[in-house]
Formats: sequence, C-alpha cells, structure tokens
Amino acid sequence: RERTRAVLAHKRFQRFIVGVILVNAATLGLETFPPVVERYGTLLTVVDHAALYIFAVELLAKIYVQRARFVRDPWNIFDFVIVAIAFAPATGGLSVLRAMRVLRALRLLSVVPSLRRVVSALLRAMPGMSSIVVLLGLVLYVAAVMATKLYGTAAPDRFGSLPTSLFTLYQTMTGDDWGNIAREVMTRHPSAWIFFTIFILVCTFVILNLFMAVVVSAMDE
Amino acid sequence: RERTRAVLAHKRFQRFIVGVILVNAATLGLETFPPVVERYGTLLTVVDHAALYIFAVELLAKIYVQRARFVRDPWNIFDFVIVAIAFAPATGGLSVLRAMRVLRALRLLSVVPSLRRVVSALLRAMPGMSSIVVLLGLVLYVAAVMATKLYGTAAPDRFGSLPTSLFTLYQTMTGDDWGNIAREVMTRHPSAWIFFTIFILVCTFVILNLFMAVVVSAMDE
Amino acid sequence: RERTRAVLAHKRFQRFIVGVILVNAATLGLETFPPVVERYGTLLTVVDHAALYIFAVELLAKIYVQRARFVRDPWNIFDFVIVAIAFAPATGGLSVLRAMRVLRALRLLSVVPSLRRVVSALLRAMPGMSSIVVLLGLVLYVAAVMATKLYGTAAPDRFGSLPTSLFTLYQTMTGDDWGNIAREVMTRHPSAWIFFTIFILVCTFVILNLFMAVVVSAMDE
Amino acid sequence: RERTRAVLAHKRFQRFIVGVILVNAATLGLETFPPVVERYGTLLTVVDHAALYIFAVELLAKIYVQRARFVRDPWNIFDFVIVAIAFAPATGGLSVLRAMRVLRALRLLSVVPSLRRVVSALLRAMPGMSSIVVLLGLVLYVAAVMATKLYGTAAPDRFGSLPTSLFTLYQTMTGDDWGNIAREVMTRHPSAWIFFTIFILVCTFVILNLFMAVVVSAMDE
Ligand code: NA
Ligand code: NA
Repeated sequence: RERTRAVLAHKRFQRFIVGVILVNAATLGLETFPPVVERYGTLLTVVDHAALYIFAVELLAKIYVQRARFVRDPWNIFDFVIVAIAFAPATGGLSVLRAMRVLRALRLLSVVPSLRRVVSALLRAMPGMSSIVVLLGLVLYVAAVMATKLYGTAAPDRFGSLPTSLFTLYQTMTGDDWGNIAREVMTRHPSAWIFFTIFILVCTFVILNLFMAVVVSAMDE
Repeated sequence: RERTRAVLAHKRFQRFIVGVILVNAATLGLETFPPVVERYGTLLTVVDHAALYIFAVELLAKIYVQRARFVRDPWNIFDFVIVAIAFAPATGGLSVLRAMRVLRALRLLSVVPSLRRVVSALLRAMPGMSSIVVLLGLVLYVAAVMATKLYGTAAPDRFGSLPTSLFTLYQTMTGDDWGNIAREVMTRHPSAWIFFTIFILVCTFVILNLFMAVVVSAMDE
Repeated sequence: RERTRAVLAHKRFQRFIVGVILVNAATLGLETFPPVVERYGTLLTVVDHAALYIFAVELLAKIYVQRARFVRDPWNIFDFVIVAIAFAPATGGLSVLRAMRVLRALRLLSVVPSLRRVVSALLRAMPGMSSIVVLLGLVLYVAAVMATKLYGTAAPDRFGSLPTSLFTLYQTMTGDDWGNIAREVMTRHPSAWIFFTIFILVCTFVILNLFMAVVVSAMDE
Repeated sequence: RERTRAVLAHKRFQRFIVGVILVNAATLGLETFPPVVERYGTLLTVVDHAALYIFAVELLAKIYVQRARFVRDPWNIFDFVIVAIAFAPATGGLSVLRAMRVLRALRLLSVVPSLRRVVSALLRAMPGMSSIVVLLGLVLYVAAVMATKLYGTAAPDRFGSLPTSLFTLYQTMTGDDWGNIAREVMTRHPSAWIFFTIFILVCTFVILNLFMAVVVSAMDE
C-alpha cells in the first residue's frame, strides 16, 4: 500500500496521466472526422480503451490507498463520475452517453495543479454570488410566467409555454436578438416594450451587482 | 398583541410563509400548462386562494402589531402592494392584472433574509449610480429626438416616431442588432454611421463609468 | 456688473434656467409628433425661440461678468457652442443643424451640479484610458486595411472599401452579428475564421484591460 | 558605433521614425482606394518602399549597436518580424503576405513610449489569466466534440465537423445569435436547450472569474 501511494504521488506518474488524458482527448476529437475513423478507427478505439483502463486502474489504486478518505475529496468523486460515465456506453448504447465520454478530458482540471487551483477559486467564489443567482432565477421565473400568460397566444414560438418563455427570456437576458423578439410581440401587444424594457433593466441592474459581488470577493482574498 | 408578535417572529411561522410562497409560485407556474389546468384547475385555484388569504391575514396581523410603524418599513409597503395586486383581479378581469399575480413570488425577497440583504445592497448602491443613469437617459432622449428628425422618413419602422426611436436606440445601446439597423438607415443616409458610431461610443463610455462607480461603491463598503 | 453676477449666481435663477432647459427639451421632443405640431406648432416655436433667447441673454450676461475668464472655463465653451448651433438653423436651412437643436438639452450637464460632477469625473478618467483607446483604434485600422485587401472582392457589402471595413469591424468589435459576417466571408475564404478569431481575441483582451485601467483609476480616487 | 547609438537614441530621430510609420500607415490605407491607386499608384509604391528601407536601415543600425543584446529585447524581435513580413511579398506574391504589410503600422507600439507601456502592462497581466484561458479553451474543446457527435447530422452547417463546432461555440460564447442557433438545433433535438444553457452558464461563470482575476491583478500593481 505504501508503495502504491509512492507511485501515485510520483511526479513522473502524474505527468504520465496528463499525457494519457491529452492523447485520449485528441483521439476523442479525431473520432469526429469520418475519414480518420475509416482509416484509423481500430487504432482510435484501442487507444481510447487503453486510456480508460489506465484511468480505472489509477482510481482503484487511489481507493486502495486512501480507503474511506477517498470519498471525502470532491476531486475524487469528480474523477470517479467521469470514468463511470465513460464505462456506461460500453454496456448501453445511448448516443448522449457516448458523446459524454469526451468529458474525460476535464480530468485535466483535477490533475494539473494550476487548473485545479483556478477551479477551486471559482468554486470558492460561488457562495458569495449564490444569493444574486437565486435572485436572477426568481426574476426569470416570474417574468416567464407573466410572459406566457400575456404573450403566449400572440407569439407561441417565443412564449407559447413556460419552458419556451424561460428559454426566450434567458436569451433576452444575454442580450441576444431581444429587439426582434420584442418587435414581434409588439405587433400584437404594442405595450410589450414596457415588459421588455423593465425586464432588461432589472437583469442588467442585478448583473451589475453580480460584478460588484465579484469585485468585493476578489478584494477579500 | 404580544402573542401575535411572538407568532409572527417565530422561525417556524416564517418557514411556513416561505413554504406557502414557494407552493403558490409553483401553482401559478402550473396554471400556464393547459392540460394541468384541465385536470387540476379547481385544486390550483383553491391553493392559490388559500395562499392569498394566508398572505392577507399575515399582513393584517403585522398591521395590528406594528400599527403606525408598519408604513415606515418599505418591505411592508412592498408586501402590501403585491398582495393588493393579487386581490385586484378577483374583482376586475384584466389579463395584465391576472398575469401580475405571479409577482407574489417576489415576496421571497422580503421573507428570506439572504435575499433581503442582497436586494437592500442593490438599493443602497442605487444613489451612487443615479446621476449616471440620468445622464444615460438624457443621452438616449437627445439621440432619439435627433434620430426621429433625421431618419424618421427614411426608416419609419425604426425611427418613425419618438417612442419608436427611443426603443430602437435602447436596443442599440444594448448592442443588439445595431449593425443591421445602421446599415438599413445608411442605404438612404450614407453618413448615418457617424450618428451610430458616436452614439455607441458615448454610451459605452458612460457605461464603463457606471462600472467604475459600482467598483468604487463596492470598495466603500 | 456686480448685480449681474449676483443674479447669475442666485439659486432661484439657476433653477429657472434648469426649468427653461427642461421645457425646451420637451417642446423639441413634441415637435417630432406631427399631430401636435399641427395643432400647437406656433406655440412650440414661440417657446423654442423664447428659450433660445433666454440662453443667449444668459450667455451674454456671463461674458459681460467674466470677460476674459469666460473662455477659460470649458463648460462656458460647451454652452456657447450648443447655443450657437441652435442659432445656425435660423439663418441656414440644413436638416442636420435643425436636428442638432435638441443638443440644447445637454445644457443640463453644465447647469445641474450632480450631472456636472459626473461628467467631470468621466473626463478626468479619460487620460488614463487614452492610450488603450489609441491602441484599439490602431488595431481597428490595421485589421480594416487587411480585411479590405483580403475580403474586399469576396464580400463587397462588408469589406468593399476601407470605410466599409472599418464599420464592419467596429460592429464585430461590439460582438454584433459577427458570426454571420464571418460565415458569409468563409463561403469564399474558408480560412477567414483565423482573421475573425484573432481580431475578436485581441479586441476582447484589450477591452478587458480597459476595464483594468478603469478599476485602477477608480481606486486612485 | 557610439555615434550610431547617439543617433538612434536622439528624440528627433525617434519622432522621424514615428512620422515614417504614420505616413506609411496612411499610404497602405490609401492603397485600398482604386481611384487613388490609379492616379498616385507610383507615388504610393515609392513612399512604401522608402519607409520599408528606412525601417530596415534602422534595424541594421540597432543590430550593429546592440549586437548580441539585440535578440534579448522582445520589442526588437517584434520589429524584426514585422519588417521581415514586409520584405516577403517583394519576392513572393501571396495576397495574404501583401495584406500583412500593413502590420508595419503596429511598429507604433514599440516606438511610442505610452503605447509601449500599455502593451507591456497587457502582457504582464497575461500569466495571471493564462490558467483561466486554458480552462475556457478546454471547455470549448469538450463542448465542441460533444456538439459534433450529438448535433452534427441534425445541423451540419453549425456542428457538421469539429472545426465548424468550435467556430459555432466560440460565437455562442460571445453571445452572438446563439438563440437562433439553439432553436435551429432544437427543432430536431428538443432537449438541446440543456446543452446550450449549461454551456453559456459555464462560460459566463468562467469569464466572470476572468474579470475577477483582472481586478485582482490590477490591485496588485
Ligand atoms: Na448580440
Ligand atoms: Na445579434
């Protein structure tokens, strides 16, 4: 067990894992080029399976070394879920699960120290902005219910149901093409500009304050 | 009176109110799905009315306890207006007022402490940016009057009247589709690029300074 | 002379001027509504002329009081130019100059102290960002010359001449509809994505640093 | 050698070089106007060649003065590459290389001290954000591989191959027209909104933290 721990902690071993992740990310990308798959398909599959088994062995070794402590490190859970996803398509056949195999490239986040530090910093900044995100979600929900009731029959493509309205207003919130959406609604409901103007003002204002929270949290560090 | 105050301040009572708000927000959302309304319409109405009467009783209890002090807390006014809006459609029949019933979900802002704190922080940041918002409004008004006079006949859909111009320039300010609007005008007024370029530069510059004000106000805290 | 100075500095006189500016801004806005002009056209013209002459008399009084010092205050130059513009259409007949009469509403910036302070703050922040703005202008110019040479014949509507390219790339810089512009060019020049990607990366990076400069300048205050 | 150094360091000489760069930038811009080329084509070519030879001589003088130290200053490498690019089209005939001659205008960055300082500041800020940029690149790559596998056959124009997906998702990341792209995919894959919503949320969140890094790095100065 002590020897396994030493191997896992060795710099050369970690570089080897980074290499395997990069090679695997490349083969998963190459799999999207039909001519490459036609000529080197078997090679890509072999490399992909090899990488997957290396990851599995690494994980098992970690579990063997760390035992109960394994589940306490969220990065281990992250690695475990990603490798588990990768195993799923081997048994099942869902295209979504097959597509999710490329999430394995995200293992770089847990293996490369500088990326790991960035992601940790991002996650630590989250609680400071969670209230504002909840507020933004609440504004989105309330506006979507209102828009569905007010404009659902006039613009069914945009506001025909609650999910459609949520999508359209999320798009509006990012400022994408909202002018054309509003104009479309305004042909039937001329006063719709009030709804859109207030919605954008409120969102902009809340997002401005999200920045403020980010700045404050940046200064606290 | 002392006992009413104790009940209102009790943690369990406040959790109950949060629960009612969440359930009510859900039923108001479910009301937008026709098949749900068809099957559970009566249930949704009953829950909606129950929630509304709970809010009304809570408000009356608060007024009974706080008396004159009630109107001094802006959150009370906020709750009162929201519940009042909810009562309006029961008597009248306007679809806008019916749609505004969902604003009741915003009561979460006054009841959940962390959201209340965020909204208070937002409102406190407002005076610091009010001058810049007035400046932005003035720029928008002046530009809209100019655009109506200059491009009103060339592009009536965009700048045909002062309200239309205000809407189009507000859209331009958010950067949405302004290139196509400008190109449309430039087919008739080739020099219109001067107007649009200056307008966007001025708005960007003022908004940059809105950020600056936000940062400064964030650091003052 | 001392008495004129006292009148000009009097709070009631300054409020009167603010009132005149607001009334004049309103009449200039109302002039864009044809039915209003039809019924109250003469009244609007009378109010407009009255406001203009009040501004002119105020300016002359200021010149009389301050003499040589008048030209040293940039706000005076600002007021002078704006009133001069307003006089121009009386003699000439250009529609652009007529439209620019509404710039008179910007006199609010020099008269209302809080707006005056905001604009001063904006102007003081300018030197700190001037180098970055020059850099952005240089990047825009270099990219526009390159785009005209490379894509001028393939997409003449977008990059047919240097001014057209400058406009299109300015639009690209603000993130408006650049994907469609790039795709249009890529039908003829498949490698154009390199140009657009680098251009947007460089602009984003420089603008990020404009923010940084703004934050630093905000903290120096 | 001492005299050459004195000439190079002389203020008047540096102003002369700035002048040559500006004149050359102007002639390269004028070259994009066919009527100007028709009438003054020879003059433009002469000025262009003259400027190029002045730059070459300046570079040779610098190499003569600084010798081995020449390659240690990155600005010298920058100047050298830019002038070398300018020489290439004289021998070859590629339109891309001809278009890149205008990059010579960027020599202003190395010659004008205030621009030089700004660019240095930008470059110094880069290491602080490199990890976040790598993270953003990784997210983009993983999302592009997934989108190609999931939506490649449904929307070949947008996600038909890995490079196409990378371009479309880069566009989505900048918020340009993503709503229409998502709607296009959703006609065939109704659940595609999950992919787009998560992708935009993750990108926005990472970019927010890029700002945070920028603010922190601004405060460290
Ligand atoms: Na946009
Ligand atoms: Na757009």
